[in-house]
Amino acid sequence: MPAPAWIHEQFAPTGSAIGFRVTRKLDEVQSPFQKIEIFETTDWGNLMLIDGAVMLTTRDNFLYHEMMSHPALFTHPDPKQVVIIGGGDCGTLREVLKHPGVDKAVQCDIDEQVTRMAEKYFPELCESNGDPRAELLFDDGIAHMRNAAPGSLDIVIVDSTDPVGPAEGLFNRAFYESCFRALKDDGILVQQSESPLALLDLINEMRGEMRKAGFTAFRTLPFPQPCYPTGWWSCTLARKAGGFDLRDDDARAKAFDTLYYSAELHQAALILPPFVAATLES
Amino acid sequence: MPAPAWIHEQFAPTGSAIGFRVTRKLDEVQSPFQKIEIFETTDWGNLMLIDGAVMLTTRDNFLYHEMMSHPALFTHPDPKQVVIIGGGDCGTLREVLKHPGVDKAVQCDIDEQVTRMAEKYFPELCESNGDPRAELLFDDGIAHMRNAAPGSLDIVIVDSTDPVGPAEGLFNRAFYESCFRALKDDGILVQQSESPLALLDLINEMRGEMRKAGFTAFRTLPFPQPCYPTGWWSCTLARKAGGFDLRDDDARAKAFDTLYYSAELHQAALILPPFVAATLES
Repeated sequence: MPAPAWIHEQFAPTGSAIGFRVTRKLDEVQSPFQKIEIFETTDWGNLMLIDGAVMLTTRDNFLYHEMMSHPALFTHPDPKQVVIIGGGDCGTLREVLKHPGVDKAVQCDIDEQVTRMAEKYFPELCESNGDPRAELLFDDGIAHMRNAAPGSLDIVIVDSTDPVGPAEGLFNRAFYESCFRALKDDGILVQQSESPLALLDLINEMRGEMRKAGFTAFRTLPFPQPCYPTGWWSCTLARKAGGFDLRDDDARAKAFDTLYYSAELHQAALILPPFVAATLES
Repeated sequence: MPAPAWIHEQFAPTGSAIGFRVTRKLDEVQSPFQKIEIFETTDWGNLMLIDGAVMLTTRDNFLYHEMMSHPALFTHPDPKQVVIIGGGDCGTLREVLKHPGVDKAVQCDIDEQVTRMAEKYFPELCESNGDPRAELLFDDGIAHMRNAAPGSLDIVIVDSTDPVGPAEGLFNRAFYESCFRALKDDGILVQQSESPLALLDLINEMRGEMRKAGFTAFRTLPFPQPCYPTGWWSCTLARKAGGFDLRDDDARAKAFDTLYYSAELHQAALILPPFVAATLES
C-alpha cells in the first residue's frame, strides 16, 4: 500500500480549505455532468469528490443527512409525499424512509453515476433503495419540479451541490416557484444552505429568492459538517405560511436511531447565534 | 503584493486538514518555547500559527473566546476571582472582563511572545489588557496553579494549545489536582477539549483525569470553530459538585454584546448529540 498523502479542497468563496489524509484512489468516473472520484482515507472511511469538491465521507455524512431530513419531517404534521432533488448518494433518502408515515420518496438526481458510486463505496447509504416506497429517477431536477402536479407534495428536499455547475439552477426564483406550486399549503421546502459563518450572504440571497417565489416563513438550522468548507453548515426550511414548531412528542418517541438528531438537538438547532440572526432576520 | 497562496495544517490525530488562502507572511518569531507565525489572509483577517498549528484568525476567534468564558461565568453564582492558564492572545481575558462582577482576572501564559504578537496583529483582543482587574503573567501555568492559594479561585480557564509540547502537562491528573485545590467549593474548571467528533476519546480521557483529581460533575459544550481541525470544537466544564444550570436571567440581561453567545445558545450548547452523549456519559 502506498504511503498516505493529503488531498485538499481549496474553496475559493470562503478562502478556506479542508483536507483528508488518503491512502489510495479507489475509483474515478467522468460522467456526462461531472468528474466523480472515490478515495480511501486513513480516518474517515471512503471519500467522494465531485469536480474536486468533497461531497461526503463515510464517517461524517450522518450529520448532513440527518439534518437535511428529520427536522423537516418532524415539523410537518403528517409527511407522506417526499421528493429529494439531488441526493444521489441516497443518504437523505435512507433517513426519509425511516419515517413509517412516508408513503413515497422520489429521489431525482441528474447523475446516475453518483448513485452507482454510492452503491459501491457507501453501500450503507443505499440500504433503503429497494424500499417499495422509494423511487430513484436520474433526471433533471429542475424539470422534475416544473412538471410536478400542483399541491401534490408534503416535503421537497434540495440536496444539491454548491450553486455552480449542474446545481446552479436549484438556487433561484424559477426553481423555487416550481417547488412552491408542487407543495401543499402546509408543505416544507428544505435546501442545503452552505456555511452560516462564511456564506451568510448567500443564505440571505437564497431566502430572498424563496421569498420572491411565494414562501413567507424561513428557518435556517446550523450544524457541524467537517467535510464541508469551514466545518459548519446549514439547512434552510421554508414554508408558505406558519411556524416551525417540531412535533416534539413524536420526535422523542421516534422508533429509529440517529447519531446526531434528537428532539432536543432539533430544538437547539433552531436557536441561531446572535450574529447569524442579525443578518438573516434583518 | 504577491499572489495568494494556500497554507494547510495537516492534523495527524484526526487525519484531516484545514487551510486558509493567505496573501503574505506578516511576522515570525522563534520564542524559547515555540515558533509563532502571523499571516495575512484573503478572507479571515490575520492568522496566527504556533508550530504550524492554527491558533486563531481575526474572523472566527470570537466563537472560541466567547464559549471558553461566558458559559462558565454565567453558570457560577458569583465569579470574582478568575485565572486563565494559557490564553496568551488575550481574547479570553477580554471576554472574562466583560463581566462587571469579576474582581480579578489573572492570565498566565508561559510564552510572552504570543501576547506581544497578539498586541500587534490582534489588537482588538488586547483592548482589556490595561483593565486594572487584569494581571498578565508570563510563567509556567502548571507551577502557577500548584502554588495558588487553596480555595481562592472561582473559575480556572485552561485556554491551551493541544496536549503536546508545552501544553502536555495541562491535561493530566496532577495539574487538575492543583486546579481542584485552588478552586472554591462552587468553583468551575474550564478546559478547551478538542473536537467532539474526531477526538471524542481524548475528551473522555481528559474527563477521566479530572475525575481522578476529585471533580465529580462535567459538561462538554460543542461549538463551531472553522480554524480548528474538523471545524467543530468543544469546551468542558468541571465542578467539585453540583449542576450546570446557567443564571438565565443574568445571561439574558447581560450588558455587553456577543456574536455567538446568548442565553438561548448556552442552553442549546448544553444539548449533546446522541453519539456524543453515548460516549461521554457511558
